[in-house]
Amino acid sequence: MNSVVLENAFLERLVAGLPRTPRQRNGLQESDAELVSLPGGLLLAVTTDALVEELDSGLYRDPYQIGWMTVLVNASDLAAVGAEPLGLLLNQTFPVDPEAGYVERLQAGVADACRAAGLAVLGGDTSFGPRPQMAAVALGLVPGSTVLTRKGCRPGDLLFASGPLGGGAAYALGALGGGAPGPLPRFLPAPRIREGQLVRSYASAAIDTSDGLLAGLDQLVRLNGVGFSLDLDPASMLDDGAAILAQATGVPPWFFLAGPHGEFELLFSVPAPRAERFRAEARLLGWEPLVLGSVIPEPGVRMCLDGSESVILDTLAVRNLGGHCGTDPRRYLEALHRIHESHHRERERSRS
Amino acid sequence: MNSVVLENAFLERLVAGLPRTPRQRNGLQESDAELVSLPGGLLLAVTTDALVEELDSGLYRDPYQIGWMTVLVNASDLAAVGAEPLGLLLNQTFPVDPEAGYVERLQAGVADACRAAGLAVLGGDTSFGPRPQMAAVALGLVPGSTVLTRKGCRPGDLLFASGPLGGGAAYALGALGGGAPGPLPRFLPAPRIREGQLVRSYASAAIDTSDGLLAGLDQLVRLNGVGFSLDLDPASMLDDGAAILAQATGVPPWFFLAGPHGEFELLFSVPAPRAERFRAEARLLGWEPLVLGSVIPEPGVRMCLDGSESVILDTLAVRNLGGHCGTDPRRYLEALHRIHESHHRERERSRS
Repeated sequence: MNSVVLENAFLERLVAGLPRTPRQRNGLQESDAELVSLPGGLLLAVTTDALVEELDSGLYRDPYQIGWMTVLVNASDLAAVGAEPLGLLLNQTFPVDPEAGYVERLQAGVADACRAAGLAVLGGDTSFGPRPQMAAVALGLVPGSTVLTRKGCRPGDLLFASGPLGGGAAYALGALGGGAPGPLPRFLPAPRIREGQLVRSYASAAIDTSDGLLAGLDQLVRLNGVGFSLDLDPASMLDDGAAILAQATGVPPWFFLAGPHGEFELLFSVPAPRAERFRAEARLLGWEPLVLGSVIPEPGVRMCLDGSESVILDTLAVRNLGGHCGTDPRRYLEALHRIHESHHRERERSRS
Repeated sequence: MNSVVLENAFLERLVAGLPRTPRQRNGLQESDAELVSLPGGLLLAVTTDALVEELDSGLYRDPYQIGWMTVLVNASDLAAVGAEPLGLLLNQTFPVDPEAGYVERLQAGVADACRAAGLAVLGGDTSFGPRPQMAAVALGLVPGSTVLTRKGCRPGDLLFASGPLGGGAAYALGALGGGAPGPLPRFLPAPRIREGQLVRSYASAAIDTSDGLLAGLDQLVRLNGVGFSLDLDPASMLDDGAAILAQATGVPPWFFLAGPHGEFELLFSVPAPRAERFRAEARLLGWEPLVLGSVIPEPGVRMCLDGSESVILDTLAVRNLGGHCGTDPRRYLEALHRIHESHHRERERSRS
């Protein structure tokens, strides 16, 4: 299974034999939201995401945050295709006897995230069960004729992130018990809907960082047959919380780009000739996207792990750690340390 | 809480404070699928339904059936608004180590139900967790200008069911251990998509019987401020399996119309002047819908419980039993027997 992404392989097994439609503009895993042609030239974007491992592991515990994230994970997929939000459906399973205020706090998180994303709630399904469950469906329309998916990166394109990274991994370390002692940082990422609409006009491909930067890049590598050279130093990619935690714990900064719990920023490639105009328009929104590096012809992710020369990182090994280590951050960190060391030794060997 | 449907009251609490949109053509609980106006005059139908109690209670155990029902419960909502199927998204949580063949049998049920409903699979979300979960989202388009919702029944309309009833309750009795001994009857209801499209051209209102006939009628009573007179004898409404079980166990036939696990038929009202033409068109499809009775001005459901005079049934009490008795069919049957007896005593009193 060495060249196989465990999650992708399972998905391919799931969809074998299921009927498909020529109305769909994207293939399997080629887009954060499914894109469906409607009569009259409309393009519908639809996505569904559930919080399962996030609740089972205790990653999200506060009901307001659970409500917010249920909306956000879906809004983030709409943002990655540059859709105009249309509406949301909720799929909620409640405990039979919820604590006082639980339902209201949960729904307040849903309502606030919907307002932040410009999503109206259309309806949904409500159940009762021993384990609370949350899922949602987000619908949007993609205007005009420019379709943005995960496919389209070309060598020479610049690679952008919509904001600083590592906040999702830093939060997960704190929440799951692998971080520094102290209060848990707040984790309520903003939906990047408006930014996504601008990105659609300029970018050649986009994906959100729901699974972290490196998993997103690995997915883009596989779909586009290209590679990425990360020219920005990992420490400079981190948001303040992650940077402080990296310093306090001595964990190499790139580990915060490798966690399976991402920060829900957009990751996108923009052809170099359009990049200046894109950045100028972004500034008009009061938005300063980060240039991480560029697209290169050789598949793989080239980055600097420890402040010296850059290496081609084994992103597949990083990406499959989730399946092997579950939600135990200590095992995850140990595994990352082993990858870090092996790259270090390899470099030493090639020098001597 | 005596005049309150427990489920509806909870739903109203959930949606208070959530943003809504004027694009939506139906109000809360007024339609089996949400209806959203799109630019260009298109009307999108979207619905999401999860199997939660159905899996937690063991009502559905066979993976093929679980796959089929995940699609069917959603397709049935599209049928009730007369939509043309567009596509389906799946929200699946798998056990970390599924039994050999489990995934394939589950997906075969999904695939076969999708083909039966004319639904293509667009995508979805996959998770892993200690409890298998299944949910789906179905999308459709409502052509033309005729919108079919749960609202619109007028006194004098005829009340139809798309097929014989009681099969869902009979199945639940068998599966949950309140029925006669013997092999469990097969329960893989057919999606009523084609029938729903015909119904949309003729009916004043429609709902599916996912929660059983009486819950569906109670919902229509509340939304329309009308009542229903069931002129067909309950025994004559039952499908073969339910009829045989009613005879074998001595359970009054109307109990099979009162269970919270319905048969996923369509329940709809047709203005009397259009009824003959509707039935003629239905026959062209090889379809013989059942006339159950008619819409009357007085709110409530008038029906014959035991072969003598008809009574106004306390459908609210019946409908709230689910919340009080959970998924224990013995408690449910006992409660129905109490309602049966109280109606019987009342009639005796009014006679003397």
